[in-house]
Amino acid sequence: MESFNFYSPTEFVFGKGRENECGRYVKKYGGTRVLIHFGGGSAERSGLLGKVRRSLEESGVDFVELGGVQPNPRDSLVYKGIELCRSEGIDMILAVGGGSVIDSAKAIAAGVLYDGDFWDLYEGRPIERALPVGVVLTIAAAGSEGSGDSVITKEEGLLKRGTGSDALRPRFSVLDPELTQTLPAYQTACGATDIMAHVFERYFTNTREVEITDRLCEAVLMTMVKETPRVIADPDDYQARANIMWAGMVAHNNIVGVGREQDWNSHGIEHELSALYDCAHGAGLAVIMPAWMEFVYKHDVMRFCQMATRVFGVMMDFEDPEKTAVEGIRRFRLFLHSIGMPINFAELGAKEEDIPVLVEKFGIGDSRTGGFVHLSAKDITEIYNIAAKAEL
Amino acid sequence: MESFNFYSPTEFVFGKGRENECGRYVKKYGGTRVLIHFGGGSAERSGLLGKVRRSLEESGVDFVELGGVQPNPRDSLVYKGIELCRSEGIDMILAVGGGSVIDSAKAIAAGVLYDGDFWDLYEGRPIERALPVGVVLTIAAAGSEGSGDSVITKEEGLLKRGTGSDALRPRFSVLDPELTQTLPAYQTACGATDIMAHVFERYFTNTREVEITDRLCEAVLMTMVKETPRVIADPDDYQARANIMWAGMVAHNNIVGVGREQDWNSHGIEHELSALYDCAHGAGLAVIMPAWMEFVYKHDVMRFCQMATRVFGVMMDFEDPEKTAVEGIRRFRLFLHSIGMPINFAELGAKEEDIPVLVEKFGIGDSRTGGFVHLSAKDITEIYNIAAKAEL
Repeated sequence: MESFNFYSPTEFVFGKGRENECGRYVKKYGGTRVLIHFGGGSAERSGLLGKVRRSLEESGVDFVELGGVQPNPRDSLVYKGIELCRSEGIDMILAVGGGSVIDSAKAIAAGVLYDGDFWDLYEGRPIERALPVGVVLTIAAAGSEGSGDSVITKEEGLLKRGTGSDALRPRFSVLDPELTQTLPAYQTACGATDIMAHVFERYFTNTREVEITDRLCEAVLMTMVKETPRVIADPDDYQARANIMWAGMVAHNNIVGVGREQDWNSHGIEHELSALYDCAHGAGLAVIMPAWMEFVYKHDVMRFCQMATRVFGVMMDFEDPEKTAVEGIRRFRLFLHSIGMPINFAELGAKEEDIPVLVEKFGIGDSRTGGFVHLSAKDITEIYNIAAKAEL
Repeated sequence: MESFNFYSPTEFVFGKGRENECGRYVKKYGGTRVLIHFGGGSAERSGLLGKVRRSLEESGVDFVELGGVQPNPRDSLVYKGIELCRSEGIDMILAVGGGSVIDSAKAIAAGVLYDGDFWDLYEGRPIERALPVGVVLTIAAAGSEGSGDSVITKEEGLLKRGTGSDALRPRFSVLDPELTQTLPAYQTACGATDIMAHVFERYFTNTREVEITDRLCEAVLMTMVKETPRVIADPDDYQARANIMWAGMVAHNNIVGVGREQDWNSHGIEHELSALYDCAHGAGLAVIMPAWMEFVYKHDVMRFCQMATRVFGVMMDFEDPEKTAVEGIRRFRLFLHSIGMPINFAELGAKEEDIPVLVEKFGIGDSRTGGFVHLSAKDITEIYNIAAKAEL
């Protein structure tokens, strides 16, 4: 196990109807004049925004509103939000939505207190301070409700870039599983895939002797394997929604990833897909992650056997462990297919002939990237090729 | 799953040699004049106190010292600490030790800001504020480094009482697994037993549909089953120590226990043993916990089968599940014995004839207690009887 710091100071407020308490938590964490940040019209139509406004009013908190966050949130709205916060004297941002809304809120929060172009903070400049952010979560997926991470897409050139800072960790996050019950099956499955990917990025490591985090990773993965098909079958299954929603937080506040080298190549490789095609991040991951596994598994066959046996219940083939490793990857892809995820470029709406463009935009040149296997541009090309042609 | 709040704002600073950074963290969290609180002479002899003093000096932090915390920490030293903090103008308490030292530090931290007898706070009065507490941990056991809990023994009548408050959560905790390598095998095993007990108290629940926390509980338990025998065999196994140390935090900051009713009867029943005989808490738990399991397992045979199969690898007997449940409990007791723990009153140094006194001091009269099975005084008598006579 490697040395690490772990810091997750967010207060999580979990359960049915708890969005009605958001005004109280805004006040508790010092908000007096709040920007409510949200996405499209569904938050309004579902009545959620009405509940949030009422709760803020009851707590005597002023607010202004900025909607319109798109999936793969854009820099243009961040600039607009920063300007609005400054002109309105906002002291807290309340993100009402999923990962895109939260990531956009974090970018605004950091940008307001930064004297320069906020994009610098997504190009490597450390984020030292930010306005406090609160969250009312509507989809279990990105884990942004419990992380210090944020990913924004620059419209010019469709550059997708991420940053991370403890200053971006939400002060509080309201998680009401019932709010996720209106999500279509496809978005639900995309979220589940993202959650599993957050664990796999941490699970595949070269760090030895990390039993506790291995077991915690497997705990989240097994939960997703059990609970996801239940919500696909019955979107109103509150209990399955609740398990997935908490699993989504646990998967990404890093409690399952401390003390070990992590990989994160699949996320990087996927980001180029969702930037170019504006597809759902989870759908892109469903296509990329098994392809990445097929490309790298020989680097550590026994680790893939561990995944196959512990997570997917594959019988270990002690005479030919490689068969077990391959079977684990096959089971993962079958699982993704069974919950309605795409498994190749055609199903995703991506084009094989774009692969050189994707690799070019990935932009590692002659260097290598990733914690588990250090991939070159040629390796990444090969992973896109596997992903393009994958079959069950 | 039930509704819950989860809040664990402590910054964990994990790894070899990181106690040398404690001055920096004291400053980061606002300490300028610190009380170093510790136990016996071992912290001095090992050189740890020297390192802590040096780190504080290098950061320009003043300090005074108060040692002498005993296992099952006493109210008398808490009173002394409160007086010292007030007369010296202390603004942070740095606990250098294990659960007893941390719990004593928390009691002092709350007592300093309380206008009255601090014991009120252990008799049910809520704790609203406390001086900030920092920790340098020397034993993996109590989980006090990541919890808001504290247990203190009142010398008059040997009353052992606990309290909990977010105000008592440490601001930072330094966890260096190397510091635990000097611990004797017996204390190491006591700590491991305490860690497993913290999980079992949460694992046995009547709340349905808690897959994510079930799996997280099992992750910690399986880690302890794997790693504990390694440190008993080789006290200098840093990697096993590291896994156990992080497991000890995860077991008790409540990440594995949210959203479910918890039990906590075994802890209550044990506390009377360690209060009366001044035995190690973990040793008392090794005697009580399997006895409690034997008394209650019929309440939910399948939950005990889940523990038996998932944690201890027992083959499920589908024709007679009760056999599987009983075998799981037997394996747990065998495990405790294998790491050198006592399994009955004689091995613990407790006396069967004291059982009426223990039950009397437990003090529930005609009421019932516990989240999984609501126990009466008669039930608790029976559990002490089972524990008194237990054999492998």
